[in-house]
Amino acid sequence: MLTAAYTGHRTIDVIEAEPQPPAAGQVRIRVAYVGLCGTDLHILHGSMDARVQTPLVFGHEMSGTVDALGEGVVGWEVGQPVTVMPLAWDGTCPACLAGNEHICQNLDFIGIDSPGALQAFWNVPADVLVALPDGVALDAAALVEPVAVAVHDVRRAEITGGEKAVVIGGGPIGVLIATVARAFGAEVAVIELDPARRAQIAGLGFATLDPRETDQVAWVEEWTGGAGADVVFEVSGAAQAVLGATSLAKVRGTLVVVAIHPTPREIDLKRVFWRELRILGARVYRRTDFERAVELVADGTIPSDLLITKIVPLAETQAAFEDLEAGRAMKVLVDVQVGQEASA
Amino acid sequence: MLTAAYTGHRTIDVIEAEPQPPAAGQVRIRVAYVGLCGTDLHILHGSMDARVQTPLVFGHEMSGTVDALGEGVVGWEVGQPVTVMPLAWDGTCPACLAGNEHICQNLDFIGIDSPGALQAFWNVPADVLVALPDGVALDAAALVEPVAVAVHDVRRAEITGGEKAVVIGGGPIGVLIATVARAFGAEVAVIELDPARRAQIAGLGFATLDPRETDQVAWVEEWTGGAGADVVFEVSGAAQAVLGATSLAKVRGTLVVVAIHPTPREIDLKRVFWRELRILGARVYRRTDFERAVELVADGTIPSDLLITKIVPLAETQAAFEDLEAGRAMKVLVDVQVGQEASA
Repeated sequence: MLTAAYTGHRTIDVIEAEPQPPAAGQVRIRVAYVGLCGTDLHILHGSMDARVQTPLVFGHEMSGTVDALGEGVVGWEVGQPVTVMPLAWDGTCPACLAGNEHICQNLDFIGIDSPGALQAFWNVPADVLVALPDGVALDAAALVEPVAVAVHDVRRAEITGGEKAVVIGGGPIGVLIATVARAFGAEVAVIELDPARRAQIAGLGFATLDPRETDQVAWVEEWTGGAGADVVFEVSGAAQAVLGATSLAKVRGTLVVVAIHPTPREIDLKRVFWRELRILGARVYRRTDFERAVELVADGTIPSDLLITKIVPLAETQAAFEDLEAGRAMKVLVDVQVGQEASA
Repeated sequence: MLTAAYTGHRTIDVIEAEPQPPAAGQVRIRVAYVGLCGTDLHILHGSMDARVQTPLVFGHEMSGTVDALGEGVVGWEVGQPVTVMPLAWDGTCPACLAGNEHICQNLDFIGIDSPGALQAFWNVPADVLVALPDGVALDAAALVEPVAVAVHDVRRAEITGGEKAVVIGGGPIGVLIATVARAFGAEVAVIELDPARRAQIAGLGFATLDPRETDQVAWVEEWTGGAGADVVFEVSGAAQAVLGATSLAKVRGTLVVVAIHPTPREIDLKRVFWRELRILGARVYRRTDFERAVELVADGTIPSDLLITKIVPLAETQAAFEDLEAGRAMKVLVDVQVGQEASA
């Protein structure tokens, strides 16, 4: 079978490998689609070289079908459509013991810390499988993982309906957060620099803002009747966005830190104090977030067709990252099925 | 009567004034003691000149007795010991309408935005009065306002018992937060640079740390069995403290921003994301915080004798600020009663 592996030095190699039978407690998945995400791009850029072991078959946003069951695995059927919640926790650290397994202090993020989905057949522990409904489109289902991130973020912000939320950064995760927040009952505005992305987001029915052309503080003030936004999601990763974010939130409003900021950022703590703001880190998801994400993909709440810019074969994975990097794509999927016949 | 007023240019003048009868809805208080605080020092330094009108009779931590009731005021008796919760809100802004009157978007902080307590007789709206129990020592009662700040901070952190909390900055508010957090059931360690303060705090039974001599992250890790602190209170106002604070908190731990940071501060947002931390601004207090503070002062939980470094007459207010500024004092009270006879 063919696999796509990060081998260091900004390179992805397509490597031939022999499918392995699932070990006891594992399920072998016949992988269909794998989504490429910003974390994968960080890996490709070498930013996570201290963490990953090469060659790394990566990829953690995926869909597929059950191909074989390892010894002792029950409750799954060959051919059943599935996705994977790619987290393995130790169950013994203080975070796990406090019920926060999803951010275990020794978390194994499958696809980063252990092999991922960019291979025709993928063995994973049975307990990371998440069932997909029969008949779900497997390309759309590859979006479940990033949708679960968005569900987690929206739930972390305690959005339950009636809120006004601002999303800073209209990339894939920003758009999914906007979509999920709206599905949870919030009214949403998205701040995004790129005009093409703004147009696409406006096409999804969201208010959009270019912060270089519009005074974002005045706009939000007007939009919220002088109160400020209930929730601000920082998804851009930009220092300037963080510095401005606190001025958009209402008294006792919430700022959710979704983006990964590799270096410390300046925050207006006087504003945090003055308005008694709440800043929340939000990372990955719980199983309930994943299950809700499956529903949102399956019922069409997530506009998968509009978000999936293109689907490429495994051999074009590296080129697809270049499109992502250049901002030419919202979401690119790798169709892992294509070309496997020639290899098999 | 004598009043102490900030007149600009780092100057406090003692100014003679005529006591006024209380207007309708007001109560006239015979002021006993006024505590000097960091905000007053900021006023004296001119940092709040854009906000305050001079001459400003300032002071907002106080105790006294009811001297006269304005028209329509009921429920108070002349001679009754009282303190003041120095907040006046408009009741109509979005923050007030959402139930957050204490941080009203147009808050009048009495003693900053309107005349304060450094005068023999002080007229205030009746609804800002808070009753003191009979027999309470009026010098100790001048601590109720900063204790209410501490109660608010501890409640904002949702400390209910069994937590491990770190207080960064062992000045008056830091010590009060440590004391109140302990009273609410937390185990507390205080990080403080000044050796004299550390010794005093250790004398109150708290663990103390000099972050220049002890690796604070390793210490907290050890103290908490590898988990990190449940709550970290940032009371120092120092940039370096903010940057280090996020490394002290456990997964899903809380950092409460108590100090006022005049300029934006760098925060390790990657850590905020990674551990799903919560950063909370905390400002002033609600009435329930004030009432709890009265109980904590009256029942001796607050070690007033140890915290009140000295008591000076009104004429020495400016000199007292110099002691505060030099870090020679924990809490200085002005005895407003002394010397008034000569003036009357």
